[in-house]
Amino acid sequence: MIIDGLQYCNWSRKIFEEMCVGGVSCVHVTVSYWETFRETVERITAWHRRFEAHGDLIISVRTAEDVRQAEREGKTGIVFGFQNCSPMDDDFALIQVLHELGGRFMQLSYNNQSLLATGCYESDDPGITRFGRQVIAEMNRVGLVVDMSHSAELSTLEAIEFSDRPIAITHANPGWWMPALRNKSDTVLKALSESGGMLGLSFYPHHLKDKSDCRLKDFCAMVARTAEIIGVGHIGLGSDLCQDHDDSVVEWMRNGRWSRATDYGEGSRSSAGWPRPTDWFASNRDFANIAAGLAAVGFAEDEVERIMGLNWLDFFETSFGPRP
Amino acid sequence: MIIDGLQYCNWSRKIFEEMCVGGVSCVHVTVSYWETFRETVERITAWHRRFEAHGDLIISVRTAEDVRQAEREGKTGIVFGFQNCSPMDDDFALIQVLHELGGRFMQLSYNNQSLLATGCYESDDPGITRFGRQVIAEMNRVGLVVDMSHSAELSTLEAIEFSDRPIAITHANPGWWMPALRNKSDTVLKALSESGGMLGLSFYPHHLKDKSDCRLKDFCAMVARTAEIIGVGHIGLGSDLCQDHDDSVVEWMRNGRWSRATDYGEGSRSSAGWPRPTDWFASNRDFANIAAGLAAVGFAEDEVERIMGLNWLDFFETSFGPRP
Repeated sequence: MIIDGLQYCNWSRKIFEEMCVGGVSCVHVTVSYWETFRETVERITAWHRRFEAHGDLIISVRTAEDVRQAEREGKTGIVFGFQNCSPMDDDFALIQVLHELGGRFMQLSYNNQSLLATGCYESDDPGITRFGRQVIAEMNRVGLVVDMSHSAELSTLEAIEFSDRPIAITHANPGWWMPALRNKSDTVLKALSESGGMLGLSFYPHHLKDKSDCRLKDFCAMVARTAEIIGVGHIGLGSDLCQDHDDSVVEWMRNGRWSRATDYGEGSRSSAGWPRPTDWFASNRDFANIAAGLAAVGFAEDEVERIMGLNWLDFFETSFGPRP
Repeated sequence: MIIDGLQYCNWSRKIFEEMCVGGVSCVHVTVSYWETFRETVERITAWHRRFEAHGDLIISVRTAEDVRQAEREGKTGIVFGFQNCSPMDDDFALIQVLHELGGRFMQLSYNNQSLLATGCYESDDPGITRFGRQVIAEMNRVGLVVDMSHSAELSTLEAIEFSDRPIAITHANPGWWMPALRNKSDTVLKALSESGGMLGLSFYPHHLKDKSDCRLKDFCAMVARTAEIIGVGHIGLGSDLCQDHDDSVVEWMRNGRWSRATDYGEGSRSSAGWPRPTDWFASNRDFANIAAGLAAVGFAEDEVERIMGLNWLDFFETSFGPRP
């Protein structure tokens, strides 16, 4: 069972075929970055058309059981998520609506300050706002997972504290390994795991030591060390695969409608576009490399299976439904 | 089992208590008349708050099984519908979204010409449009019932013909009994029943012989005659109860955003507001009067049960899910 905790590709039949060839049973796909609710619904209806056109390869999943069904049928289950709170239109009541439309993850902030929390690129982080606390409670009620992948330190710690259900960091790596602003401190990772949360480890070059030149064995050694710190039961994958997009898409992700000047995010003026992928992960066909690499650094077979997908499956089981 | 095929009240705890006192297991409630998609979502989230605040009295229902659960729990199930196609924003893809948010009925036109069909107050009726045929097919696919209560004759006949699943006229009466523009010809009623469709009989005074002075025994005699024409298996209730609203609401229903001059619909300048209810149906407490009246005109006990709710339940069973 392979589950990927985050992708945002230029979706096509080719990519869905690669998911099936790679044996991927579920992918959490990003539906929105800066899109409003109405725009988010457009993105969701585009997925409805994809489920119709490519029903032999992909199915919509909303529960852990749906993921198991996808695996039984040799298909890839697609679960929706939002990398920012813009899809809720600053309206508390839309959280349930987003969940009813299949949303299962929502980030409280994306790089910048939001009405709910602070993003990882702000210089000051006052933590979860008054509105943010209300939103976390409502997300807990309906079963929309709080994702703090792009949020700042204090906001992330407070989200873990204020949420009464485990949260996720769907795609990030430990900061001690690669000190990107997006990567997470040990304090955050320990608080996350102690509360039952999940970390999806990212293959996005800007999150990797040596970036595009990162070696698989170094990545897997990092996983082994991370497992010592937070326990193998809290680790999954969150590849952050962004395949087949032109550079206008990464510009949208970084700039949305908030910046008149170009913000380069984790890139730079001289390296503004998509980073070159590593030689061990460039598409959904490459998950077997990860499993082999994990075994090579000493993970037992059942530990590899947990990291490759079963930990996410267990998390989905308890996180995607209404609060009992 | 009492199921009401249409209500649009000024919803309050008082009304939900009356539903429970009256033993009503399900009400199809109108969410939108002229509202856009985004406004419709606001109306739906207002219902989410009502389900939370009054969970001891009402529950959200999306399937026939949900209605049976409501009956077992002594609560009233609420099913959403739209009296016009405005909630789909002229976007084919929103039909599935409306269904996912709990919508189970949608009228193709409300009194006026729409992009899909003609309304009952237009002077000419060219029938179902090109767009309308596409929408019917999509409604058939997802399980959103075509409702032609406010549509014109040819459009209604064509909707019955083009739909490959049975359709509904949730709230109207036979035109031979009361020749309101909203009421339906025998031609329509026969085509409806021959295709497996349902007619919800209305208690709204403008649809009744002698209007607010209509006698229960005359109403029930009409039901008996209608059963002879189309069969008792195709008849249910669609009270069109519009309780506790001020007159601004009937003005919105009639005028939406389409008329600068006031349109009086089934009323008139001298009788512009809500009609006075009959003395036998003014609230959800009064369904027992109908059951007694039907028995008094000779319906057998099982026929009364079918008309009071079981016919609707069977229709829900086969109509609310995706096309098999």
